[in-house]
Amino acid sequence: MTDLYFDFLCPYAWRGVELAATLRAGGEGFRLRHYSLAEGNHPDNAQTLTWRLTDQSGAEGPAHQQGSLRAFVASHAAAGQGEAAHWAFALALFRAVHEDKQLLDTATLMATAETAGVDLAAFERALADDQARRAELRADLDAARELGVFGTPTFVLPTGEAAYYRFETLTRDPATAREWWTLYRTVLTSEAEIGTVKRAKNRPPRKGGVKP
Amino acid sequence: MTDLYFDFLCPYAWRGVELAATLRAGGEGFRLRHYSLAEGNHPDNAQTLTWRLTDQSGAEGPAHQQGSLRAFVASHAAAGQGEAAHWAFALALFRAVHEDKQLLDTATLMATAETAGVDLAAFERALADDQARRAELRADLDAARELGVFGTPTFVLPTGEAAYYRFETLTRDPATAREWWTLYRTVLTSEAEIGTVKRAKNRPPRKGGVKP
Repeated sequence: MTDLYFDFLCPYAWRGVELAATLRAGGEGFRLRHYSLAEGNHPDNAQTLTWRLTDQSGAEGPAHQQGSLRAFVASHAAAGQGEAAHWAFALALFRAVHEDKQLLDTATLMATAETAGVDLAAFERALADDQARRAELRADLDAARELGVFGTPTFVLPTGEAAYYRFETLTRDPATAREWWTLYRTVLTSEAEIGTVKRAKNRPPRKGGVKP
Repeated sequence: MTDLYFDFLCPYAWRGVELAATLRAGGEGFRLRHYSLAEGNHPDNAQTLTWRLTDQSGAEGPAHQQGSLRAFVASHAAAGQGEAAHWAFALALFRAVHEDKQLLDTATLMATAETAGVDLAAFERALADDQARRAELRADLDAARELGVFGTPTFVLPTGEAAYYRFETLTRDPATAREWWTLYRTVLTSEAEIGTVKRAKNRPPRKGGVKP
């Protein structure tokens, strides 16, 4: 099972989750895990961890930060209904935000739960137990910090190799997804012990297209 | 022809130059170009370029910075004797510094020139024209900045793709070098438009070995 760390705020995480969802349909195992860009990049955490997303009220701070916390809590609420529900919810929420440009607000979260076929009454009960959901979230964020995750998507292979994998093109094509996943694993498991491949240039404008 | 940007200070650039030298023996074209880590990472350059390596006296500042400037100037002096001399000198200097742990001082540079089979009298004449060598160096550093180079080794493919390629294992084996080079080019030319693959974890301790 490969762990996939993501933040709903991140368009590259969206591409990663679509890739993993496509590969899951072909039998590859992925587990959804949360990593907070707001917490990871917070200036108060430069030396030691003092600012935690899970300690925020959710009613103050920048809108994207509030939205991120709200989305993570909802993601854990959906996860309570099993793996299939969690994937359906996460994928639908990424698409709502990055494809349909919806805000990460309560209306979007409820509409997404409905789209994803989540049991709405159970979802609302799970959301109401906010402290339990935050504790689940904190466990994910702690695990990510332990691994040294710094961006999303980050995949952690069953053999322990872990890396940020940023790519521009979104694919839902099984053969293409398989090719890009094989390439990533080849880089991570090469005897060269590759630490980084990172473009020197500013990237060209995104194609914005979805590969068939 | 692929451009290879390097700094003699950098052990990863050493691996990159060894890889390229191995591939050159098989007919692949690489051109040696200089990039200064001291200039690229200098705090005075955070906003705009104000600190230039080529403006330094070479007799003040941290020892590694002085050594880097001295080595670049010598590298351009060797380059004046042609491509083969430049490669022989650069490779011998990387090995002197990173394999034999020599200091980047004048004694090492002269001994390296001798080891590399450089014409010593011509080398000394080229070194004596310090302003001309610095002008050549500045042209390389300007080209690197234009590309957004931020670390070494950075390879710039003939098609324009450019990326930092950091790996731990040194190889001089032609088949292995070919495999790692193909992997790098595959990442850079994939339709995924990969921007970054970067490990999340601290890397395990270096093997330190040389792959046969």
